[in-house]
Order: sequence, then C-alpha cells, then structure tokens
Amino acid sequence: MRRPTAGGAGVVGTVAPMSRGFADATAVEVISRTEESIVLRGVVHPGWDIGGNANGGYLLAIAGRAMAEAVGRPPVTITSHYLRPAPAGPCTVEVRPVKVGRRLATATASLAIDGTQVLQLVGAFGEQTPGGPRDVVEHPPALPPFEDCAARPAGAETGTRPELLNRLDVRMAPGADGFRTGRPSGAAEMAGWFALGAEEPIDVFGLLLAVDAFAPPVFNLDLPIGWVPTIELTAHVRGVPAPGPLRCAFRSRFVQDGLVDEEGVIWDSDDRLVAQSRQLSLLPRG
Amino acid sequence: MRRPTAGGAGVVGTVAPMSRGFADATAVEVISRTEESIVLRGVVHPGWDIGGNANGGYLLAIAGRAMAEAVGRPPVTITSHYLRPAPAGPCTVEVRPVKVGRRLATATASLAIDGTQVLQLVGAFGEQTPGGPRDVVEHPPALPPFEDCAARPAGAETGTRPELLNRLDVRMAPGADGFRTGRPSGAAEMAGWFALGAEEPIDVFGLLLAVDAFAPPVFNLDLPIGWVPTIELTAHVRGVPAPGPLRCAFRSRFVQDGLVDEEGVIWDSDDRLVAQSRQLSLLPRG
Repeated sequence: MRRPTAGGAGVVGTVAPMSRGFADATAVEVISRTEESIVLRGVVHPGWDIGGNANGGYLLAIAGRAMAEAVGRPPVTITSHYLRPAPAGPCTVEVRPVKVGRRLATATASLAIDGTQVLQLVGAFGEQTPGGPRDVVEHPPALPPFEDCAARPAGAETGTRPELLNRLDVRMAPGADGFRTGRPSGAAEMAGWFALGAEEPIDVFGLLLAVDAFAPPVFNLDLPIGWVPTIELTAHVRGVPAPGPLRCAFRSRFVQDGLVDEEGVIWDSDDRLVAQSRQLSLLPRG
Repeated sequence: MRRPTAGGAGVVGTVAPMSRGFADATAVEVISRTEESIVLRGVVHPGWDIGGNANGGYLLAIAGRAMAEAVGRPPVTITSHYLRPAPAGPCTVEVRPVKVGRRLATATASLAIDGTQVLQLVGAFGEQTPGGPRDVVEHPPALPPFEDCAARPAGAETGTRPELLNRLDVRMAPGADGFRTGRPSGAAEMAGWFALGAEEPIDVFGLLLAVDAFAPPVFNLDLPIGWVPTIELTAHVRGVPAPGPLRCAFRSRFVQDGLVDEEGVIWDSDDRLVAQSRQLSLLPRG
C-alpha cells in the first residue's frame, strides 16, 4: 500500500509541501522500442481502487502517460475500452503509433496487468495551441469555495468510504453526496471540487484521473443500481490546468435499456474548460 | 458515380419503392479470416463526399458494418480517429478482436483506401437489451413535420450543395441553415430531420452515418471557419430505430484554442433516443 509522501516536486504556486503520490502511482518507463511498438512498464498501485478494482480514470492516466511518453507529445483525446476488472500489480502498456503528423500523433495501446489485457485504447497527441476563435457560453458549476466544502464525505468514519478517496481530495457539492446517506437528489447529476492529495499539482494526466473520480451521477437517482461498469470512456484534454483545485460537473442524460451515458466538464481556477469526458456504461439489472 | 436505385429491400411500413443506395454503398465482404484478424473489403463510393473527401459518418458506417460482420454482433459504441482525407476507391477493413465476452465483443479496426490507412477504430459490439431502469428527461428537438421542412436547402440550384446531400434526405430546422445564405443563427446549434434517399430504411449503420450528416454547428457562429476536420468521433448506438425519418440535434459547446467539440442526439419516430455522438475537431485558423 502506497501513501502520498511530502516533497519530491518543486513548490509552485503554494507554500504547502507537495506530494508526488499521483505522479509516482502513474510512473512508467520504456522497456523496449521497435519500429512497430513501444512497450512501457508501470505499476497499478493498490489504494487507487473501488473495492479492489482499480479506478478507470487512474488506469486511463497510466495508459495516457505511457502513450504520451511513447509518441513524445501530451494527450488531446483518448478513448479507453474497459475489458475486465483490474487488480493491483505490475503492468505493461504496448503503444503502436498509427500516424505521426505535424499537428497530431495518433496511437493505439493495450494495457495489461500481470499479462492480462485490461484496457484497449486509441488516442491523438499534440501540444495545446492557445488562441484563435473562441465561443464558450457555459460557466463552471456554482460551488461553495473549496475550503468550505466537506473534505470527507459521509462514510469516512464508518469505513464505507472507497479507499480511492484517500488518495484524492474530492469535495462534492452540497447535496450531491446525498446518495451516501439514502437521500439521492433525484437528478442524475454530480458536481464538486477535485484535487490530488497533499496539494500535488494537477497536470494533464491528472485530468484523465479527474474525469472518472466522482461517484456515478445515476447514484443520485432512486434506482436499484449497485455498480456501473464502464464500457468506454473518451476524454478530451482542452487545456493545461492552472494551479489549484478543479471544478467538475457530471451528468447522465439517458438511462435506458441497460446502458447509461455520463458526460463531464472540468474547469480550472482561471475559469477555463480544461477537459471534457463522455462514457458509456452498463447498468446491470437489479 | 452511383445513384440510389429503386427496389432491392422489401417494402416495410411504406408504400413507396425503397432503394438500397446506402446498404450498397456500405456493403462489405470477408476476404480473409485468421485467428488474429478478419479482413473485409468494400468500396468508398463517390458521391458520399464533401468536395471529394468522403464523409466521416459514411466511412464510420462502412467500418462499423465490417467490424460488426467480423465479430457477428451489432455496434454498441464505436470510436474512429480520422487520419487523412479519404478519396473514393476500393477499401479494406482489418478487424482485430480484442475480447469476446458474453455481453460484448470488443475489437479494433483499420480502414484503408487503396492501401493507405484512413481510419483507426475501436468499438464494442452486442445486441440491444430493451428494458430495465429508465430515466430520460429530455425530448426530441421540436421540428416542423418532416413533410413541411424543405428537402433542398439553399444552394441546391446553384451547384454549391455538397454532393453528399443528394444521397440523403436531410431537412434542416427553420433557421438552422441560415449560414448558407450569410445569416448564421449566432448559436453553435444544428437540428433537423435525417432520412436516406428513396425512403431506404435506416438500420443501426445508418445511425453511424446520421451522426455526421449535418453541417458543423459552428457554421452558425459568425466566425471565419471554412472547414472543421474531425480528429475523433465516438458514436453510441442506444437503440434500433423504428421506421421513419430521424430527428437530430447537434451542438458545439466549447470553441477554444483551435479545437471544437460537437455532440449529437438522434431520436426515432417513437420518440426514443437511438444514438448519441461526440466528436472533437480541429478549427483551422482563418
């Protein structure tokens, strides 16, 4: 079990000591490189899971870091298919570049834990290019200040809180966590603040974690739903986040026929959209 | 150049003769099958293009049909990355099954035209399973009746109408096509009816075409935008469409830093959501 430790990264934009817990838990290194593929290894750490199954955003962050490292550019859009539950353990990511262009590099990848494939991915990678036409009419979700939101949702003291939330500083909007105490809001929405533990700075790979770090919005419906396994998750990186916690809003629009969508938007402290996500999940009956 | 021809499919739910123009233009056949991959061939037909570049939804429909044929199940979610412009010509789709499970089969695929890869795809395939919990608060877009909407938007007589629209029966909502005559609505939205030519029935592969058949919503902004090349498009099939034209609504929420998202919802004649889409596109400057 790994816990965040102080120190490591330089102190940027804050006077508090910063951990590299997330950076360490998603670290990868190249172990082979041929014309066809680049293979990297990392470790799916315990403690970034829900009930022993590694969080989908955490796995996406490991794979995204590996793909970015392999093609030498940061992620713009990544799609991941989730094939089976993911235990902790050593992992490999095999990256196959598909096209390396001037603006974007496209690659597929496979993430395997102990030799068993868990994710299949495809993504496009390239630097953000600020400027150009702009048309954004939406605003970040209205939330009380980070400091005023409860850092520990209900369940923290009774041991029912997912272990993953000990690695993060997720602070749900008032009412959004009513489902934890049998008072779902009735709307398939979820919103709140996202930060890493120990004030670790959030890079673009942290965004890949953030898009799947909240409880499913359908938990706020009065439906008999126990778990919501993701089939597919696509994350678009729309900017490099400014320092500070992120504001996140998620909603599910269409619960029908055993499937549910979930879309998310993530805003930084400069009120800029930095990530969008959409996933499609199974909704097991009963 | 192929044009829709009458006859072919059985007459279902209408007394008009029906074409198999779309079915023919997306037909594929298996040419090799090994343990690792299934290769199919088809033809990217002329006339399903914008200015000589095959429409992204049309290519997605060919690839989706090939992937579904290869794994023996209909599409649930497909993501396509668009690597380069696609001329008409013979094409091959190489499908690699990743996992074949009870509920879903996952596969990657590569579509190449004349030997050059144009699309990289990943998808999950499985039958729709009607029933279970339902929570849908949205409604289809409010549109005048199909018969009352103009079948031929401005430009039809002057030759500026994209050739693709001769294969389809896309009828934009009043005002949504103002951009064609220099009167953009000012909101990055697009809505209207979608049907295939000659009343050809719309199957789940027709949905893959429909999600990219309308002009980009950003054309309704007063921005210097000439073209909007898709990086990535993900389509979720949420149902098998009932007979009749489809109601479609698209919008772009975030135009910034040379990128734009576009999301779509498609409803059938029973007022059921049958497809969702999201794409991320480049927004070339100037």
